[in-house]
Amino acid sequence: MTLSEVANELVAGCRENRARANLKKLYAEDAVSVEAVDMGGMGRETHGLAGIDGKHQWWDDNHSVAGGKVDGPYLHGEDRFAVVFSVQGTTKADGKAFDMTEVGVYHVANGKIVREEFFYAT
Amino acid sequence: MTLSEVANELVAGCRENRARANLKKLYAEDAVSVEAVDMGGMGRETHGLAGIDGKHQWWDDNHSVAGGKVDGPYLHGEDRFAVVFSVQGTTKADGKAFDMTEVGVYHVANGKIVREEFFYAT
Repeated sequence: MTLSEVANELVAGCRENRARANLKKLYAEDAVSVEAVDMGGMGRETHGLAGIDGKHQWWDDNHSVAGGKVDGPYLHGEDRFAVVFSVQGTTKADGKAFDMTEVGVYHVANGKIVREEFFYAT
Repeated sequence: MTLSEVANELVAGCRENRARANLKKLYAEDAVSVEAVDMGGMGRETHGLAGIDGKHQWWDDNHSVAGGKVDGPYLHGEDRFAVVFSVQGTTKADGKAFDMTEVGVYHVANGKIVREEFFYAT
């Protein structure tokens, strides 16, 4: 897949609630996911598809999503694209509402996402 | 200035129409500005503050801006932040309307922006 095909399919997957199903299709086995800050004391980086799938599981387990928007993709050169996510909902543990925006920057090599980096207000 | 101070001042400058005046304050002398694609046959990269100021001049000379929005900053680790720009207006040469969104990713070292990278639909 070209950069543009990978980027469009990632965005489509996020919009159609199949982001997790898309991991195997779009990500390299040894892809790295990097948070803006170390949130859980586990460091900022998660290595490998299983770990990235685990991040999705953690998100699904802990958040009720009420709405959101996925803007992009925005391309940069031959090997990167950005997506802007906004999402509203509540955290399951305490029912607290959140309304957050984050930017994801994706690095593509050999037709697969090899690195994703998340930017947000910290 | 810290990463967060640089990021907030860049965003404030864009909102208050003093982005260009902010170049000397926020950017390293040898900063690099990178477009998503080579638009004018000059390559994607512009090196140095004078060249980056020239990009602002080119933008001002060729575009009438009617409105826009600057969202962020969104931080990533110790040395990067992203800003989401949307801008509406017309190109002066032909009066054609545009409505574009782009993501800027900024790299900071020693309290100055050393690299900016623009992501957009290409």
